[in-house]
Amino acid sequence: MPAPTPRTTKRADAVRNVERILDAAIICLADKPTASMADIAKQAGLGRVTLYGHFASRAELLEAVVAQVLAKNEHALAAVDLTGNPRDALVRLIDSSWMLTNQARSIIAAAEDELPPARMQELHAGPAARVEALIERGRREGVFRTDMPTSWLVTVIHQILHGAAVEVSTARLDPRDASKRITATILAVLDKPDEMHGRH
Amino acid sequence: MPAPTPRTTKRADAVRNVERILDAAIICLADKPTASMADIAKQAGLGRVTLYGHFASRAELLEAVVAQVLAKNEHALAAVDLTGNPRDALVRLIDSSWMLTNQARSIIAAAEDELPPARMQELHAGPAARVEALIERGRREGVFRTDMPTSWLVTVIHQILHGAAVEVSTARLDPRDASKRITATILAVLDKPDEMHGRH
Repeated sequence: MPAPTPRTTKRADAVRNVERILDAAIICLADKPTASMADIAKQAGLGRVTLYGHFASRAELLEAVVAQVLAKNEHALAAVDLTGNPRDALVRLIDSSWMLTNQARSIIAAAEDELPPARMQELHAGPAARVEALIERGRREGVFRTDMPTSWLVTVIHQILHGAAVEVSTARLDPRDASKRITATILAVLDKPDEMHGRH
Repeated sequence: MPAPTPRTTKRADAVRNVERILDAAIICLADKPTASMADIAKQAGLGRVTLYGHFASRAELLEAVVAQVLAKNEHALAAVDLTGNPRDALVRLIDSSWMLTNQARSIIAAAEDELPPARMQELHAGPAARVEALIERGRREGVFRTDMPTSWLVTVIHQILHGAAVEVSTARLDPRDASKRITATILAVLDKPDEMHGRH
């Protein structure tokens, strides 16, 4: 291994600065989705030149913030028990997903202002893959509908979660009702439409 | 009535310029959602100073574009037959709404990049009110579910339509399948959950 050189020290500084910027951005945006680059630099205790040296635009910074929040959430989601009845497992996964979405509501609002919806969907590829695998299992086990592609069902779940976040932000949805409402809506879409029929 | 004065002539010029700008913006954004203020000024045959004189920012212009497109769509939606069975009427209204959403896909993508989701919902107050009234009637007539507020069901419909627009834009949804898929998804949410039960 080469001995530390000024270059690697500089790199360590850069990594530390990026961490400080991301932490500061998460604090600022959670407080105010319209927080500016200047607000974030001030919170991080760094100059604007340093900030722009790492993130050329607010959109670039928002991308990194969303990636960071999703990476942290990944731990919580990986801990959800996805075994057993796929419908019950989906309810557990949606509950956790909503808790995390609701916590990050202000950051999501900021990101949705700055990033195209298609980019937001791409950034959610990780959580989407987990939901997708569970839906696939539910389809194989005859619980979830199979007359629509799984990718569409995942999109609908994403849209319902994000719609609920907007509704809570604009006080049109009571956060205490949100979880039950979201689950009931998603299950109405996913449940096999001819389920009752099939039982006869 | 006062005779035309330089002031009213100036106002007529301003109205004409705004019309030219909005027409140009719709053409440019339909072609490329990232079209710049400079692109739009050029298309309108106006200077950038004139453009910024009417719209202080791209966000302001996008708001006016969305309002204009929605006002035009209003005629098409007002022509939809909403009488008779509320479920059939809703299918007709969703079909027309999707046709218009799909036509305006590129402008919606531009607007969603520039305007907060809550603002987009506010701008859709007109079409939302029409959907809301129809859902209310369907609830009174025992066709649609009543265990969730109508405002939530309207939000879900909005989110599904806009999610479908993103899916078509990113080529994850075939436009030929979209209408059927959207209708089936929305009806799965709106249909009374205990309908089959109720029949026994």
